[in-house]
Amino acid sequence: MKNYKLTLCYDGARYRGWQKQGNTENTLQGKLEALLSELLAQPVELAASGRTDAGVHALGQVCSFKADTPLSCEELLSRLRAALPGDIGAIALEEAPPRFHARLSCTGKTYVYRIWTSEDPCVFERRWVWRVTEELDEKAMRRAAEALCGRHDFASFCSNPHMKKSTVRSLRRIELTREGNELRLCFNGDGFLMNMVRILTGTLVEVGAGRLSPEELPRILDARSRSAAGPTAPAQGLFLQAVEYAEKSPPAGGNIY
Amino acid sequence: MKNYKLTLCYDGARYRGWQKQGNTENTLQGKLEALLSELLAQPVELAASGRTDAGVHALGQVCSFKADTPLSCEELLSRLRAALPGDIGAIALEEAPPRFHARLSCTGKTYVYRIWTSEDPCVFERRWVWRVTEELDEKAMRRAAEALCGRHDFASFCSNPHMKKSTVRSLRRIELTREGNELRLCFNGDGFLMNMVRILTGTLVEVGAGRLSPEELPRILDARSRSAAGPTAPAQGLFLQAVEYAEKSPPAGGNIY
Repeated sequence: MKNYKLTLCYDGARYRGWQKQGNTENTLQGKLEALLSELLAQPVELAASGRTDAGVHALGQVCSFKADTPLSCEELLSRLRAALPGDIGAIALEEAPPRFHARLSCTGKTYVYRIWTSEDPCVFERRWVWRVTEELDEKAMRRAAEALCGRHDFASFCSNPHMKKSTVRSLRRIELTREGNELRLCFNGDGFLMNMVRILTGTLVEVGAGRLSPEELPRILDARSRSAAGPTAPAQGLFLQAVEYAEKSPPAGGNIY
Repeated sequence: MKNYKLTLCYDGARYRGWQKQGNTENTLQGKLEALLSELLAQPVELAASGRTDAGVHALGQVCSFKADTPLSCEELLSRLRAALPGDIGAIALEEAPPRFHARLSCTGKTYVYRIWTSEDPCVFERRWVWRVTEELDEKAMRRAAEALCGRHDFASFCSNPHMKKSTVRSLRRIELTREGNELRLCFNGDGFLMNMVRILTGTLVEVGAGRLSPEELPRILDARSRSAAGPTAPAQGLFLQAVEYAEKSPPAGGNIY
């Protein structure tokens, strides 16, 4: 059995998220496992760096799987590409060390959240952005972002109320960049809780709109309660951009389009 | 009655092209005239700079219409934006001189054709590009493009066999630019015949793929017959980028996304 590392991009609109459910039809994991199992004529189980929610996109999701095949990575990648639907892309396939596991070996992730902040039309971006037409105070958002960075208990930014494991994470960086009519929030950290990036984004937008002050962020973190934070931003603006592993220096990932 | 100039962008995928047909439901003109007539409570007829084919997109289509309304342009634009579906955007609305007519006053147009030339996935671009995975000789394509520029009878590049008016046009510029995995063909001219940009693109791709030599272009032009040229490239890669009018120096138009 060889161990493989597969880097994927996908448009999440049509899927109920990464994780296989009873009905595998509409999940990315279900779809990809079915395709790989057929191509390789053996049951294939995929481990991803993490689940993405329904409607969330990926520019560089990483998965691992074990399989026994005489096919070269190049040949398998080419067959996989030919079989994939238009909204899933295989960026790279390589053999990985035997102990590599997409989730367990992961040392960090980068997410990007795209906000369209203008009254101008966003016809060609409409599926990938959250449209916020209130005026946003980016300076206040930056101050709030600073307060969020660091090692904290992010329980207030987790939508799973039954989370039994630790909700402590290191949020290394939040970068706000403006690209024309778009405000992009880029989050890098060692790991993210359920809906964490979307709740961080929803909370930062509350700050930008003036309904929360940046000074309230420490209190919101301390509350360790989902109800203390802002709303969950919609899935469609969120992209898993890159996943980091200790073995390799450049993080696997794709470009923002 | 005031005369208005409206600049639009649209994702043409869902429409049977610009021009109203018996069933107005699925045409851009039909949709827009219905919306404007309702907003202005009077019958509105739209003249566009030209028809776009079914599936063709626009970044800067220009239309004109006459209406009698106390609404300011700003107010009307805002109401129109609120009423438009997500795949049509109103970029600008302004009052135009009484004799301005989007088609008759037009002095030039720029189209962009986007070709995805890689085996790499184009998940987020898939709706806006023609995927050509054969290797393309861009130098040969540039030589062919040069042969096409100038004032010629483009009958070989017109898919309307019943065209009674002149098929002579001035093709001022064809620019090939590479943006990562994408080859963009930019066409500027005083006017374009039915499917002309798509046939020019299909023919340039034949040259790029080595099935036609750049030296054959003069013969193809001379033939004045559709069958002499290459195939019609698919609609989905084509964007009407900008329309030029003599009155104003910067052409109305939008950015490529």
